[in-house]
Amino acid sequence: MLGPEAVEAGAARSVVVISDSTVAGLYGQRAVDSLAGAGLNVEIIDFPAGERSKTLSTYGQVMDRLFGICPAIDRDCLIVALGGGVTGDLAGFAAATALRGLRWVQCPTTLLADVDASVGGKTGLDHAAGKNLIGAFYQPAGVIVDVGTLETLSEEDLRSGLAECVKHGVIRQANLLDLIEGNVEKIFARDAAVMIDLIARNVAVKAAVVSADERESGERAHLNFGHTIGHAIEVFVGYGRITHGQAVSLGMIAADGMAVRRGLLEQEASARIAGLLDRLGLPTRQSGLDADAILSIMAHDKKARAGKIRMVLPSALGTVDVHDDVTEKEIREALASLQQ
Amino acid sequence: MLGPEAVEAGAARSVVVISDSTVAGLYGQRAVDSLAGAGLNVEIIDFPAGERSKTLSTYGQVMDRLFGICPAIDRDCLIVALGGGVTGDLAGFAAATALRGLRWVQCPTTLLADVDASVGGKTGLDHAAGKNLIGAFYQPAGVIVDVGTLETLSEEDLRSGLAECVKHGVIRQANLLDLIEGNVEKIFARDAAVMIDLIARNVAVKAAVVSADERESGERAHLNFGHTIGHAIEVFVGYGRITHGQAVSLGMIAADGMAVRRGLLEQEASARIAGLLDRLGLPTRQSGLDADAILSIMAHDKKARAGKIRMVLPSALGTVDVHDDVTEKEIREALASLQQ
Repeated sequence: MLGPEAVEAGAARSVVVISDSTVAGLYGQRAVDSLAGAGLNVEIIDFPAGERSKTLSTYGQVMDRLFGICPAIDRDCLIVALGGGVTGDLAGFAAATALRGLRWVQCPTTLLADVDASVGGKTGLDHAAGKNLIGAFYQPAGVIVDVGTLETLSEEDLRSGLAECVKHGVIRQANLLDLIEGNVEKIFARDAAVMIDLIARNVAVKAAVVSADERESGERAHLNFGHTIGHAIEVFVGYGRITHGQAVSLGMIAADGMAVRRGLLEQEASARIAGLLDRLGLPTRQSGLDADAILSIMAHDKKARAGKIRMVLPSALGTVDVHDDVTEKEIREALASLQQ
Repeated sequence: MLGPEAVEAGAARSVVVISDSTVAGLYGQRAVDSLAGAGLNVEIIDFPAGERSKTLSTYGQVMDRLFGICPAIDRDCLIVALGGGVTGDLAGFAAATALRGLRWVQCPTTLLADVDASVGGKTGLDHAAGKNLIGAFYQPAGVIVDVGTLETLSEEDLRSGLAECVKHGVIRQANLLDLIEGNVEKIFARDAAVMIDLIARNVAVKAAVVSADERESGERAHLNFGHTIGHAIEVFVGYGRITHGQAVSLGMIAADGMAVRRGLLEQEASARIAGLLDRLGLPTRQSGLDADAILSIMAHDKKARAGKIRMVLPSALGTVDVHDDVTEKEIREALASLQQ
């Protein structure tokens, strides 16, 4: 009964930076020096980069290293998650579960993590049976975004973040689409002022949605816009052969087309989204989609209820609603339209 | 991004009972029948009995079985932890972390779990570096105590629960000691009426302490009474060679003697506690204690700060305080007194 519960505040503050091998190589030493310069005891734990590290096995290795630190960490220890979404999920889950909860700070280094994973307090691991099946809602004490880290981000990873930015515009804020449309070149040049503006506005959208519904009973579902069909395409094509951003781009195109066919959305709005995605280098067409296989993946994802599929569809730029009555036929039409 | 976040309420409720092999054999079928009779889909997951199952490895096996259930569980799934403290800790942690948090109900089947582990929302796993290093604070939706399950509890396990009952009396409620003193025979006969009264009053004490300090910053430390030296003795003698209750009994005797020597507690009160522990078959003396080794264990437990040790000492029956200035010399005296 002693163990963690015995420790009270007041000891010298220790900080453990958790980062993947790629980001640790790029920014680990700088982070450690900066924290050590502030008089903190700093340790760094790295793990192999990639989604494959979001497992109980890598988590166990991180915990082994965390509890192997000498002198032993106590509840005053602060965890810093330095990296992209995988790092945030893994390090956040480690923070949530070490000594029954340590304070943590998230330092995202990808646009996707900046605008998406850094907001909402979701932490987690994948399981053989599915993504993010193990995890906790555990809010960081703070999020520190350094847009300088975007300079080392690949164009492909930048695009994955941009897909979520477009999503945020469509679900809540049409003028966010204006901002992106007006700054495509500066965005790809990672212009600091534009990136700061872009990230701040995206964080504001996601934070507003999440804070209204932290536990995901209602409007947080709007964040699934583009993800219902998109995720099924991602699984069908195969992780690693299509990026999350590419899959979401296709998912948004599919949902927009469906909304137009339902008479919910004007063709012009749908075309504007497609045009923007295209300018951002995100796909709007995909060949080789097997509708039966994709429907079966969607059913497994539990979107299907009694033959009907639940999807988020836009009725205008900045406005979406959840529709519980999407038919298999509509999904087939949407998939067919992606292959035209 | 799909996975768990896609699921909404309303599906047929499924229940997963998690229990160790011993308790599953005794009560598993009855629990399953009872839940199935109420129209629920019930699965049972068992794991090897014993503290050794409180590991990341067993947790991983439980999660594999949980996510292997077909049809796949969703967020409506309810976890039932049926068993003693290990089961509550392991199943509670599984509930806390499956799909980022499932509702769970704790059904303790030991007196120790009834009066201690069932209150406070602590869940967790041991790690090679220490007990309960991995875990979460995660409150159950409810706790269901069936005193009928105490009929199959060993006398040794009953005594472990009684040690915590005595502790609750000393730290908060002197008349709880009257209740135990007046009913020793009925308690060992597991008289239902007496056990219900005993458990209800102990739960009330623990709940009052915990709810005043859910995150353990202050008065929850009072629950460590008897545990500072007791835990070190438990580690020194070796898990399995001394029960937790026996170790806590010795720890309370040590703390009481120290309080008497400090002039905080009357000798008569200390003698009354010792007499009651003795009547309950709990030890008040222990030979072969190596003070150096035990002090070193205590230092490792982080109770030691700059040579001073933090302990909870009684000033009367029902009243304790945290003392930050306990000296090594006092610990040595206390250990010596246990060996007289």
